[in-house]
Amino acid sequence: MADVNDVLARIDAQLDKSLERLFAFLSIPSISTDSAYKADCHRAAEWAVNELSAIGFEARVADTKGHPMVVAHRKPANAQRHVLFYGHYDVQPPDPLDLWQTPPFEPRVEDGPRGKRIVARGSSDDKGQLLTFIEAARAWIEVAGELPVAVTVLLEGEEESGSPSLKPFFDANKAELKADLALVCDTNQWNADTPAITTRLRGLVGEQITVTTASRDLHSGMYGGPALNPIRVLSSLIASLHDADGRVTVPGFYDSVSELPEATAAQWRGLGFDEKGFLGEAGLKTEAGERGRSVLEKIWARPTLEVNGIWGGYTGEGFKTVIPANASAKISFRLVGKQDPVALRAAFRDYLRQKLPEGASIEFHEHGSGPAIELSAESPALALAASGLREEWGKEPILMGSGGSIPIVGAFRSELGMDTLMIGFALDDDRIHSPNEKYELSSFHKGTRSWARILGHLAQWA
Amino acid sequence: MADVNDVLARIDAQLDKSLERLFAFLSIPSISTDSAYKADCHRAAEWAVNELSAIGFEARVADTKGHPMVVAHRKPANAQRHVLFYGHYDVQPPDPLDLWQTPPFEPRVEDGPRGKRIVARGSSDDKGQLLTFIEAARAWIEVAGELPVAVTVLLEGEEESGSPSLKPFFDANKAELKADLALVCDTNQWNADTPAITTRLRGLVGEQITVTTASRDLHSGMYGGPALNPIRVLSSLIASLHDADGRVTVPGFYDSVSELPEATAAQWRGLGFDEKGFLGEAGLKTEAGERGRSVLEKIWARPTLEVNGIWGGYTGEGFKTVIPANASAKISFRLVGKQDPVALRAAFRDYLRQKLPEGASIEFHEHGSGPAIELSAESPALALAASGLREEWGKEPILMGSGGSIPIVGAFRSELGMDTLMIGFALDDDRIHSPNEKYELSSFHKGTRSWARILGHLAQWA
Repeated sequence: MADVNDVLARIDAQLDKSLERLFAFLSIPSISTDSAYKADCHRAAEWAVNELSAIGFEARVADTKGHPMVVAHRKPANAQRHVLFYGHYDVQPPDPLDLWQTPPFEPRVEDGPRGKRIVARGSSDDKGQLLTFIEAARAWIEVAGELPVAVTVLLEGEEESGSPSLKPFFDANKAELKADLALVCDTNQWNADTPAITTRLRGLVGEQITVTTASRDLHSGMYGGPALNPIRVLSSLIASLHDADGRVTVPGFYDSVSELPEATAAQWRGLGFDEKGFLGEAGLKTEAGERGRSVLEKIWARPTLEVNGIWGGYTGEGFKTVIPANASAKISFRLVGKQDPVALRAAFRDYLRQKLPEGASIEFHEHGSGPAIELSAESPALALAASGLREEWGKEPILMGSGGSIPIVGAFRSELGMDTLMIGFALDDDRIHSPNEKYELSSFHKGTRSWARILGHLAQWA
Repeated sequence: MADVNDVLARIDAQLDKSLERLFAFLSIPSISTDSAYKADCHRAAEWAVNELSAIGFEARVADTKGHPMVVAHRKPANAQRHVLFYGHYDVQPPDPLDLWQTPPFEPRVEDGPRGKRIVARGSSDDKGQLLTFIEAARAWIEVAGELPVAVTVLLEGEEESGSPSLKPFFDANKAELKADLALVCDTNQWNADTPAITTRLRGLVGEQITVTTASRDLHSGMYGGPALNPIRVLSSLIASLHDADGRVTVPGFYDSVSELPEATAAQWRGLGFDEKGFLGEAGLKTEAGERGRSVLEKIWARPTLEVNGIWGGYTGEGFKTVIPANASAKISFRLVGKQDPVALRAAFRDYLRQKLPEGASIEFHEHGSGPAIELSAESPALALAASGLREEWGKEPILMGSGGSIPIVGAFRSELGMDTLMIGFALDDDRIHSPNEKYELSSFHKGTRSWARILGHLAQWA
């Protein structure tokens, strides 16, 4: 195998060429949520297929009911290990357009407080990020003549519109997509100097509940008093779901929740996370949630039960004195560790049925679920990737959590037994989904170098 | 003064003619909510003015920003007392049309279980009812040459669309509309055999509240845990507004609420009101509200605090894992007796501000208010009207309450010092606002006779 330093030198020497390719990619307005850009989405997929073919991948545009997938393989004969890289070539709509300093699909480099940065829609989310991986693969192939591990690339074009085709495509092509490990480059670093590997994703359970008390909407003059009001019933049910310490009251909710390993807890305590700044940026004046837990722990390692929507009765202009027949809420749990979505959904329903007052009925409607992801701190692949990041950045990568949920990562685990390493080089201030999205040139450059190192290390995976 | 029996005989003899006039009135589709019927509304007002002029009223169509008012006066030189009669010539839309057995504006008489009945939109609400009064006046004038009391008639054409012009018109014409007593014929009897006077109307306070916890909607993955959720805050506030006995917890809420006079309580107990049937018809399976009070007492004589609408977060199809920045509710109180709308609104706001958790803010928006109406059981006019009803029906009229609110009746009291007698001959099964609206022929006939007697008695009012 070639020396990784030669690969890194090639990346440095070819940075301008890499950037040219990124600019070509960013110039395609592959907005998945707007059907007016359907042809552009297809064009972005073709662009990626051409680039991957040019460096010797067997690549194709794979049609779906929505925007197409890009699937590409390059499997060296003597490779010990095989990784699946996932990214997305679609981007968010650029609206509001008038807040952009330059047009969103005319990429440019500007000077920023941390040095040069690339400004365009998709520069960070996710074209810039996914290209760090492809450019690292290119450098390996150009310098060493081959990749250190077998690589399958899967790019989707609907990540910004809920990935409707991803799971069906995955289900239909599991055998082709199976590898030893999945890699995703769509997350953040800890900060501009400190790399991170996201090893925890919370799971999710979605429920819609409707409380009914009457067969029709009632006039609050004629019935106000003896009529059971479903909004009041629903409010009381919601109020009963947490105790005074901010803990969820559903029986058994915390049964499978472990305390954080001390090493991880110590690393997080040492991060100097600015809790007040984080909350203040969202206009949150106080910290809520479970008493006695840090903000990072609450988001990365603790389960929640939240109300995401509520409605009932008259909600328009002015006033109507109605007592509605029913009221509804959308409720979701974020899960951690080994919490079982099926068992918790059942426990939640039982609990509310038991709390329901006489004269009210309740209906439940399921809105999907997925378990939490937690990569073991003992994972050999994690150690190898951490080595690559440590060498590039001169710092130990932070093992972060993410409060969000990425359902396909759950499917990688549950259906193919594949762990996923989520390694990204985006920063909190990249303005993804907002005007003037940017990606630090150093993120692009050192990100590419990081992947080159990680690929080299993964070849050592026994 | 002529003998009332001669007047009653005239009413009996002229019933067919009265019915012809009612049919002419009912044939005009004076639907106030639909601008396509603007000319028809005007035509209905003109019809009433012509009829009133024909029996010697000084009558006019008075324009407003919406549909016009009808104002008419006939003031005998030697009349001791002056009454203001209020009614409305507009009707509800007839939809759904296909459920009508015959066209809604082609009135007819059919046989029903209680005898003949008049079927048409507006037959009960309110053209049939208001015409009982005008036909009684006509009979007095035709038999005695004059009315026993001075009469002002005020008919509006926007009752079914919220009466937007009524209060401004009233304010601009108070001096002309002032009388000793107001009469309204837009309510029900107790049942087909038993007359009623509605002496209580609950008051109303409308409030809209918005709880805010963040400066923007948040992702429940990224913020779920440390973020205060305004839907949960709002739900807890709503849940805290009633105690386990169904009583409102706002301090001072019941301070001005008197217990029912024993005579009234005894009359209501004796009514044999079918509580289960009343609730069951609306699909209500249990009786809610203040423990230890009857359904009639709860609706007619007890205050309430109800939530009429609630909304926050994502309420569309599917699911969005949002923690919204704010959540809102529309809340109304129904007031009784001497409860002060202004003081209670302030007490409500203070209470919620005090219950509000740290980190949340609350805004209040006022949606109007009006005090309760309670006609003293000692009122001489009430006794005189009751005599007329007793003579006609052979039964003591029930002194009913109404859970609803009629703002203009409050203005009659507060701004002109006029009490209002609400005496109507409609029945629960008249299908007002529904297809195949009907008015019993006996309601029309005995209603007219009742007003003739009441007018006669009111001439004795010292």
